[in-house]
Amino acid sequence: MNAAPASKVYTLPEDLPLDCGQVLAGAQVAYETYGELASDRSNAILVCHALTGDQYVASKHPITGKPGWWERMVGPGLPIDTDRYHVICANVIGSCMGSTGPASPAPDGSPYAMRFPVITIRDMVRGIVALLDGLGIARLHAVIGGSMCGMQTLSLAANWPERAERVLVIASTARHSAQNIAFHEVGRQAIMADPAWADGDYYAADASPDNGLAVARMAAHITYLSEEGLTEKFGRRLQDRSSKSFGFDADFQVESYLRYQGSGFTQRFDANSYLYITRAMDYFDLAEEHGGKLANAFDGSSARFCLVSFDTDWLYPTAESRHIVHALNAAGAKVSFVELSAPAGHDSFLLPHKQLDRVVEGFIK
Amino acid sequence: MNAAPASKVYTLPEDLPLDCGQVLAGAQVAYETYGELASDRSNAILVCHALTGDQYVASKHPITGKPGWWERMVGPGLPIDTDRYHVICANVIGSCMGSTGPASPAPDGSPYAMRFPVITIRDMVRGIVALLDGLGIARLHAVIGGSMCGMQTLSLAANWPERAERVLVIASTARHSAQNIAFHEVGRQAIMADPAWADGDYYAADASPDNGLAVARMAAHITYLSEEGLTEKFGRRLQDRSSKSFGFDADFQVESYLRYQGSGFTQRFDANSYLYITRAMDYFDLAEEHGGKLANAFDGSSARFCLVSFDTDWLYPTAESRHIVHALNAAGAKVSFVELSAPAGHDSFLLPHKQLDRVVEGFIK
Repeated sequence: MNAAPASKVYTLPEDLPLDCGQVLAGAQVAYETYGELASDRSNAILVCHALTGDQYVASKHPITGKPGWWERMVGPGLPIDTDRYHVICANVIGSCMGSTGPASPAPDGSPYAMRFPVITIRDMVRGIVALLDGLGIARLHAVIGGSMCGMQTLSLAANWPERAERVLVIASTARHSAQNIAFHEVGRQAIMADPAWADGDYYAADASPDNGLAVARMAAHITYLSEEGLTEKFGRRLQDRSSKSFGFDADFQVESYLRYQGSGFTQRFDANSYLYITRAMDYFDLAEEHGGKLANAFDGSSARFCLVSFDTDWLYPTAESRHIVHALNAAGAKVSFVELSAPAGHDSFLLPHKQLDRVVEGFIK
Repeated sequence: MNAAPASKVYTLPEDLPLDCGQVLAGAQVAYETYGELASDRSNAILVCHALTGDQYVASKHPITGKPGWWERMVGPGLPIDTDRYHVICANVIGSCMGSTGPASPAPDGSPYAMRFPVITIRDMVRGIVALLDGLGIARLHAVIGGSMCGMQTLSLAANWPERAERVLVIASTARHSAQNIAFHEVGRQAIMADPAWADGDYYAADASPDNGLAVARMAAHITYLSEEGLTEKFGRRLQDRSSKSFGFDADFQVESYLRYQGSGFTQRFDANSYLYITRAMDYFDLAEEHGGKLANAFDGSSARFCLVSFDTDWLYPTAESRHIVHALNAAGAKVSFVELSAPAGHDSFLLPHKQLDRVVEGFIK
């Protein structure tokens, strides 16, 4: 990947304590903001990002040049209306777009690489809460997140309940299942099997483990899409040819698409960050953090919650959202829940969906 | 992998024509048989094997020392009763357990490697039909197969309809879906990304692409199991430790299990065979072979068909079996169909299942 581009960067004034027992000294959190902060600081909305996302939620990605990953949702007059709200999106600790991660220099000046401590979702949120402190935002109007961002959203609501009035969790889960862990483990093994990974010490080398990272991305990408969505989009259609080649080129469109997803990803993402962030997701189990009972995580919460799932999402299926809703009910929290119909599987939260727009807009009003 | 062990081997007396237009000269088919062939040759049952299976359906695997892959189904007094039937199981062309494949010597004496022609499911069946000719078996009492063996079973029924009286297809499909192709493509890319793959020319080298092959196997293995089955078997339980290591070892049992599946597989399977056989499966589309209409494939067939699916199989879900049943109905064929309930996903056909036993036993009577 290329060097991380400039973004707003907040250097934490204090050591960031981590769940593993270590601390990160001088950690930085890169972030973007959209819309004006009201004088009473009451209109801030935190939008978290997913595994391979970043802070460029509604502005052009500086490496790929592509639009922000949720431009259809965040902006003037859009469901998360930047004419009304001050939207903050921060790159998570462990990532590679300006926040401190394995590619960042350790205190000795060399990249952390695998010396970077193993972090958790709660550690990521700790970093973001420190940023909110730095920005003087005591209480968020809302925190919103899909997929891994939903985990952060839940973690913030559970561990810093005073920091958010509204909590919107989309296509997410309160714990990683065995199947979720299994897919991530395949990705990690693909990276680590790449000789260019070199035990993580590739930053000064000529090559980085792009082949392994691409395979990891390809495997993960399948889980983001539904079987029906793949069939509709590609079926068994051939790629730029009228008949099978009887070879190992990408004969099928779906092969070509996956290869493109894999190779494109390596341009913008660091393989070690992929290891650390998938590990954090696999470690995530909100109930375990709260005495084994998910309802405990939300005990006495005064926030309003909204859960959204998609009927074709097999990565974090509706049952996972329902599980969270039951826990919130048991904790006496205010919660609404909707399962939306969408053909595209897990990635539906990133795609145009009028009902999702209405849910988001209505919930944060 | 180690060298393929001795098995019965039939050398085809004629060139084997392939769908790609090439021929295989001097091709060999390795096979095992169980039970006596009746003097009128009327009691032969062909059992095909799956992607990574082999001819050792009911006898010890010569490399791993493990029991045959369907020992609970094939044997004296078992549903496929070798006291009554003569059971034949042949290693498919392209594989690596004695039948001609990429590891076999080409006419020039060196291994074919990637010079091996790209084969199809129909080519595999051509090889098996040639073996049946050699064995003097004009008509099978039954042909039985699950997963990829189900594809071979369907292909035999469609292309050599006079060769089988009964056709039993378990947990299979008449075509590979976009998602099926996608998972296979991840596996192929993992192998090809391994520098030890060396464009397939690794047979004389010190190393073979075991890392890539292990990743391929891990990714595929997830698709053989259901989400529920994985949760039941492993959940989020830790492997030989009381708390998370905050490292990249296999903390979770499911990680340890997958790594074991991956590394164990490389002992007994050839990476190039994995490429060729997955390609054959991805190319499989029985309707396409028959003018785009699946019913055409079974036109005028006098065989009795039985289709079995499992409710938790997301690799080849029940809808795929039903699709075949509808085509058989449209073709006026005799067909029965049952969806069985089993927690284990696609692999259920290999596991103990009394209802499956009864279906198999009853159908071949």
